[in-house]
Amino acid sequence: MGSYIKLNNPISIFSSASVVGNKEHNGPMGDKFDHWDKDDKFGANTWERAESEMQKIALNFAISKAKISENELDALMAGDLINQCTSSAYGLLHFDVPFFGLYGACSTAAESLTLASLLIDGGHFSKIGTVVSSHNCSAERQFRFPLEYGGQRTPTSQWTVTGSSAFLLSRGDSYPYISEVLPGRSFDFGINDANDMGAAMAPAAADTIIRYFREAEDTDSIDKIITGDLGLHGYKVLCELTMHEGLDIRDRLTDCGMLIYDLNEKDVHCGGSGCGCSAVMLSAHFLNELSLGKLKSLLFIGTGALMSPAALQQGENIPGIAHLVRINAPRG
Amino acid sequence: MGSYIKLNNPISIFSSASVVGNKEHNGPMGDKFDHWDKDDKFGANTWERAESEMQKIALNFAISKAKISENELDALMAGDLINQCTSSAYGLLHFDVPFFGLYGACSTAAESLTLASLLIDGGHFSKIGTVVSSHNCSAERQFRFPLEYGGQRTPTSQWTVTGSSAFLLSRGDSYPYISEVLPGRSFDFGINDANDMGAAMAPAAADTIIRYFREAEDTDSIDKIITGDLGLHGYKVLCELTMHEGLDIRDRLTDCGMLIYDLNEKDVHCGGSGCGCSAVMLSAHFLNELSLGKLKSLLFIGTGALMSPAALQQGENIPGIAHLVRINAPRG
Repeated sequence: MGSYIKLNNPISIFSSASVVGNKEHNGPMGDKFDHWDKDDKFGANTWERAESEMQKIALNFAISKAKISENELDALMAGDLINQCTSSAYGLLHFDVPFFGLYGACSTAAESLTLASLLIDGGHFSKIGTVVSSHNCSAERQFRFPLEYGGQRTPTSQWTVTGSSAFLLSRGDSYPYISEVLPGRSFDFGINDANDMGAAMAPAAADTIIRYFREAEDTDSIDKIITGDLGLHGYKVLCELTMHEGLDIRDRLTDCGMLIYDLNEKDVHCGGSGCGCSAVMLSAHFLNELSLGKLKSLLFIGTGALMSPAALQQGENIPGIAHLVRINAPRG
Repeated sequence: MGSYIKLNNPISIFSSASVVGNKEHNGPMGDKFDHWDKDDKFGANTWERAESEMQKIALNFAISKAKISENELDALMAGDLINQCTSSAYGLLHFDVPFFGLYGACSTAAESLTLASLLIDGGHFSKIGTVVSSHNCSAERQFRFPLEYGGQRTPTSQWTVTGSSAFLLSRGDSYPYISEVLPGRSFDFGINDANDMGAAMAPAAADTIIRYFREAEDTDSIDKIITGDLGLHGYKVLCELTMHEGLDIRDRLTDCGMLIYDLNEKDVHCGGSGCGCSAVMLSAHFLNELSLGKLKSLLFIGTGALMSPAALQQGENIPGIAHLVRINAPRG
């Protein structure tokens, strides 16, 4: 069967919402997000609770935009970066909807859109909500150092995005809709520097994109190829790897991590990262461009690094993974 | 649509394998498991690597039993309890198959069987492998205390199972097959004691079972109702909660956590727990009973506690979840 899948039905993203922190609000995309909080706490008293709160706000926003009730959702599929995925577990606890927890690191937005569109296409689910998040303050203290430590960051490092998005999916093509998916395989490219995630994920993105271009029928009409959070360094690695296989995508390739911040800003270095990075950029920017007809068809490729601090301490490398969904402009 | 789902096609578990540690091998089910290791290390030099190794062994065993090649699998769906689900990420890294990471705590075996059967029923996937694991030594030092600490354990505590199972699914009914699923909702019952997980998960199991009995057509032919790892205390809470709703399942109810060890053994207290508990019991015992015709139809209910040590330190309760799959004897 192969892993390239053409859906039988268009699966529309009929509503979505994005919630971000202060730094994202002050970035080049700042005015596009639905909701932001000045002190990144969203009324909570710990960073982990703040991240859960973001998921709750994002899903409530998406539901209210769609003018449906939560009971119309047949399932929620959600994930985040925090140990045991508690941002999702606690953030969505009070929604009375069947819950599937996912872990795809920063690829979780694309993983959840892939699984949700396959489940709806399969016929047993009518409406599914997907939610992901990351929070700079909860992620940095878990994966690297507490913010108070003030450690200097290396040139290849990326800034974990404080952001959460929710997407609501159902059959149809009167909203931006998913037509094809290609689930990713995990790759070990020998990278073991937690401050160089882009290079660890780029080979997985290359594998997924190359397989897509080999197997898909219509690739000419793709306006944009959007990776999740490779950042500037990973972007360059991906260009080299695909060029090496005879595929030149440089004129169509962009990366959410490179767009969400001004790359000249202090400490941003190679750009944004985290589950929230690709999710809020898709919700606030790219779905809008599709709805307005500015883009006709795009490949959204969530990139994830499947490591943990403990694994790196034990000498493991960083495996990368990349899931692809093709999203098209509404048919009108 | 509701969350009770009757599949259009029977989805068979055409192969499975179980791998356990020394304590499980010495327990009442000891001779049923496919593979065990005397020192629980499986040739690895850290507990986390040992757990990854168990997943690799389990999947290789299931593939070789089925006499297929790994390339025939369209996807892997896997999860575990370790931070960032690294037991799955590293254990399955070298299988060249699309990978979906899941996190459902100890419900992950049932969560993965639910999603895999839905995806195969939907028609885009032919064969899917699901893999889960837990390891006593990696889990205890992450969730409670390092083993060397030798802390005394409370009467309601459970023993994390060292075990991993892989299941291979495809359409068909000539092996034990899944006919119905009911994805769970998450519940907060106000329990916040990490040594009383059974009580935290029992309300979710009760909700799932009660909804199943309300919505399913044929409930008389169910021989066994099997929960994952409620343990003795959670089992009693579940009986009380279902009785309170007028549903008496005591004659058919059993719990994998109560079966895998001799409950009189030192330190086992309320029984086994962990992703591996329900998974190895299903693979090694219950699927066999179905194949032999000793059981005709069972409800397999994976129970999970969606907490983390950090969340409990911040004063959160323990949310529970329970996913249900109905598995039947081969049609002959």
